Amino acid sequence: MQLKVVILPYESAHYTVVLDQTVAKKLDLKPNDRVRVFSGSREIIATVTIAKDFPQDSVGIYTNASRILQVNEGEAVHVEPTEPPKSLDVIRKKLVRGKITFEEAMQLMRDIVGGLLSEVELAALVTAIHFQGLSIDEAYNLTVAMVETGRRLSLNRPTILDKHSLGGVPGDKTSLLVVPIIASLGFTIPKTSSRAITSPAGTADRMEAIAPVNLPLEEMTRVIEKTNGCIVWGGALNLAPADDIIIRVEYPLGIDPFFVPSILAKKLAVGSTHVVLDVPTGRGTKARTLEEARRIAHDFIELGSMLGIKIQAVSTYAEEPVGYAVGPALEAREALQALNSLKPLDLVDKAVSLAGTLLEMIGIQNGFDVAFEALRTGKAEKKFRQIIEAQGGNPGIKPDDIPLGEKTLTVYAEEDGFVYYIDNPTIALIGKTAGAPIDKGAGVLLHVKIGDKVKAGDPLFTVYSYSSVKIQAVEKIVETLRAVGIGKIAGRKMMLEKITFVPSRPLLER
Amino acid sequence: MQLKVVILPYESAHYTVVLDQTVAKKLDLKPNDRVRVFSGSREIIATVTIAKDFPQDSVGIYTNASRILQVNEGEAVHVEPTEPPKSLDVIRKKLVRGKITFEEAMQLMRDIVGGLLSEVELAALVTAIHFQGLSIDEAYNLTVAMVETGRRLSLNRPTILDKHSLGGVPGDKTSLLVVPIIASLGFTIPKTSSRAITSPAGTADRMEAIAPVNLPLEEMTRVIEKTNGCIVWGGALNLAPADDIIIRVEYPLGIDPFFVPSILAKKLAVGSTHVVLDVPTGRGTKARTLEEARRIAHDFIELGSMLGIKIQAVSTYAEEPVGYAVGPALEAREALQALNSLKPLDLVDKAVSLAGTLLEMIGIQNGFDVAFEALRTGKAEKKFRQIIEAQGGNPGIKPDDIPLGEKTLTVYAEEDGFVYYIDNPTIALIGKTAGAPIDKGAGVLLHVKIGDKVKAGDPLFTVYSYSSVKIQAVEKIVETLRAVGIGKIAGRKMMLEKITFVPSRPLLER
Repeated sequence: MQLKVVILPYESAHYTVVLDQTVAKKLDLKPNDRVRVFSGSREIIATVTIAKDFPQDSVGIYTNASRILQVNEGEAVHVEPTEPPKSLDVIRKKLVRGKITFEEAMQLMRDIVGGLLSEVELAALVTAIHFQGLSIDEAYNLTVAMVETGRRLSLNRPTILDKHSLGGVPGDKTSLLVVPIIASLGFTIPKTSSRAITSPAGTADRMEAIAPVNLPLEEMTRVIEKTNGCIVWGGALNLAPADDIIIRVEYPLGIDPFFVPSILAKKLAVGSTHVVLDVPTGRGTKARTLEEARRIAHDFIELGSMLGIKIQAVSTYAEEPVGYAVGPALEAREALQALNSLKPLDLVDKAVSLAGTLLEMIGIQNGFDVAFEALRTGKAEKKFRQIIEAQGGNPGIKPDDIPLGEKTLTVYAEEDGFVYYIDNPTIALIGKTAGAPIDKGAGVLLHVKIGDKVKAGDPLFTVYSYSSVKIQAVEKIVETLRAVGIGKIAGRKMMLEKITFVPSRPLLER
Repeated sequence: MQLKVVILPYESAHYTVVLDQTVAKKLDLKPNDRVRVFSGSREIIATVTIAKDFPQDSVGIYTNASRILQVNEGEAVHVEPTEPPKSLDVIRKKLVRGKITFEEAMQLMRDIVGGLLSEVELAALVTAIHFQGLSIDEAYNLTVAMVETGRRLSLNRPTILDKHSLGGVPGDKTSLLVVPIIASLGFTIPKTSSRAITSPAGTADRMEAIAPVNLPLEEMTRVIEKTNGCIVWGGALNLAPADDIIIRVEYPLGIDPFFVPSILAKKLAVGSTHVVLDVPTGRGTKARTLEEARRIAHDFIELGSMLGIKIQAVSTYAEEPVGYAVGPALEAREALQALNSLKPLDLVDKAVSLAGTLLEMIGIQNGFDVAFEALRTGKAEKKFRQIIEAQGGNPGIKPDDIPLGEKTLTVYAEEDGFVYYIDNPTIALIGKTAGAPIDKGAGVLLHVKIGDKVKAGDPLFTVYSYSSVKIQAVEKIVETLRAVGIGKIAGRKMMLEKITFVPSRPLLER
């Protein structure tokens, strides 16, 4: 059927066209059916949205599809029903508990990247895998297919190291130390990182307070060839792009069945040969117990081994923020300080432990000591400044040069005692409410750590923001939620909870 | 944030607004996050679509949402992030294998009807239930919630009968006989029916070839009060409307986990007390074997009993079309003929068996005979004509008054023998290719049934269409697919298939 183009002024990851219900009926189209839209030799396959009062001689096309078709408002295109993409059969196979072969994984990822699958279909795929899981072969097939349908970093180096954290701890700026330590010792570490999704800062946000991180792949390659390392944002590199599309569907559902393939696809795409995997372990993280950390680590090590990536997992303490600073600018300042002053101690210990583990994986004896030496002698700081310069930042930057929000709020201890908890979710909520990660200078600076002795009136933490309205919102939070708990007798409160139980009906009836 | 309205000229079942990526970042919004859009005291909750090149001072709003907000192009509205609807927690609960309570089912159905859930969320719900199934309590909760969030038919009658078929057989115009038989005996049967989704005709399409079926609830009530029966389209009545929204998501995925609640919600909404459930059994239907038919029937009977609906399931023969006619007009003609001439026999037998079963469910002895008498004496035909008139059709209509497509194609037997199969999916494909159900006069008229003796050159079936192009497309199909199989020796071909097996690698290696 020939129809006139109405351009709908926005873009979507997957092609959708809008047809009036009368036109859809004539073409025997139901919502989410596929049509081929063509103009001369150019064509797209799109999913149909059916509207109630759309012009009957027209088809609505988004800006990005109109560019591919090279059509303007009012021009004629042909629209005809067509078969759904082959990968829909792969999704249907998964719905009847089938296993995804390599060819099917390739078809799936090609169609995802090509924008051929609708959100309904992607959500069904993600949910199906959430319930059924993936066999190790399927995980391998999907991971390789994600990588094959995107770009790859090609460095002509036999050994490529990497560090990845499963996250969940506020203030975890460890990568800003591990990358320069490793690179300063002459080893290659092309670190791609993400921005915060639900936390006050991701590694890309932290690094961006110091240097540009939004580098294209060619620029990233140049930085690594010059300095052996980099810390860039992974989102614009087109490495395993199918993964980014899948994550958009997983996020609102709160599930992530592609978890292990997602992460390892990004590592495979940069050519990693050895990866240290940080598994923060504690309340509020992915692995709440050491048992869970071991189970998760096992999945990574097994799939990594099939992919030719050697992985060493490390469970790390995660019951309070790493260091004192939470929020992009505050964390960037703390990382710069740590490279120079070897403080705060927990941050330095974590960075040196992870870097040392990586070094031992490639045969260096006493990795921990070697890593610590790189830090102590200033080699790591010097390397970090080279990386900053190569990425386009100021190599002479000092911690105080990084601007903070000028509105502050300090919370004080109301009683003498010991800090027995710092609640990670509450600290994260305060940091986000203050404006992080969008407002780089917003965040929380702790003045205490678990176990510290405090007196009534001592400052516990200071919140930074650019906005008095946001500081007021933080005030409301600190009135209701206790971010730092003070125990009277010791740095550990022995009674965790009084467990009360009100039976819903008399016990004898049960 | 205050933004200017850009009206996007179409409607969607669920509210979506479009924001530029820069605006979304400022508001810390990810795709599918929720915003509250308000203008004065009017507001909607909508899901965010993030665009790459949308005006940064504007928000895109669909026509239906702009009506609710009473805003025009260029006017200002406020947009701010808000919590997702509570029912998203219900979906997340189902994703971690929780059970849906009655309160949760109500929340879910209210939010579905209110357009608060996105397609991603609905697809996750549907897929989660596909994998986990529903406990009988959950099925009950969801069914009642579907009914409570829609309109209900209220007839002041103690006994309300109904007939429902699980479908899958072409040419099944049985309801057009069952309804008048039951109504002619003084019993109430408010039949709502659907249009074809993937077949050449649904009951609503068949009836529409004779009388209007698109009646509002008030009009339907009036028809029943006058005649005891009706055959109307259920789609516009707003009975269990959540179900219609769920079906739109199920359809592209090819799964229907709400199957039993869906059907029984519609029955509960019209107040049915006794339902005869036709379970066509054979290749191409939902129940391929008698065992499957029994299992499906059990689910209906159990849930029906909780809902206060007495259900009698009947497995029926489904290996060839019911009667000879397939397509709205052809089937309407055949039903009118059958009410008068008691032919074709298979159609009459099926209708009388189902009507008789319904009668026996309410205590009438010898239901089959009573139903057959209503047909034989012309009472049923008279009643059908009353119903036609009450629905706004011509009560004097004769079969030949119903127009057929004037382009025809007849397929002839190529050899002497017996008809040993009529392939339902091929007949349905031919009917749809000819234009059914949109073109009411399109369809297939069989000249033979399974077991009939034929000579080379005898007509097997005639295809009707309005379009020579469609007839040409049918010609291509009949060149490749055999709709009617002729066996040389008997009406049954004893050899079903030669089973060949080519091992993919030498057997010894296995």
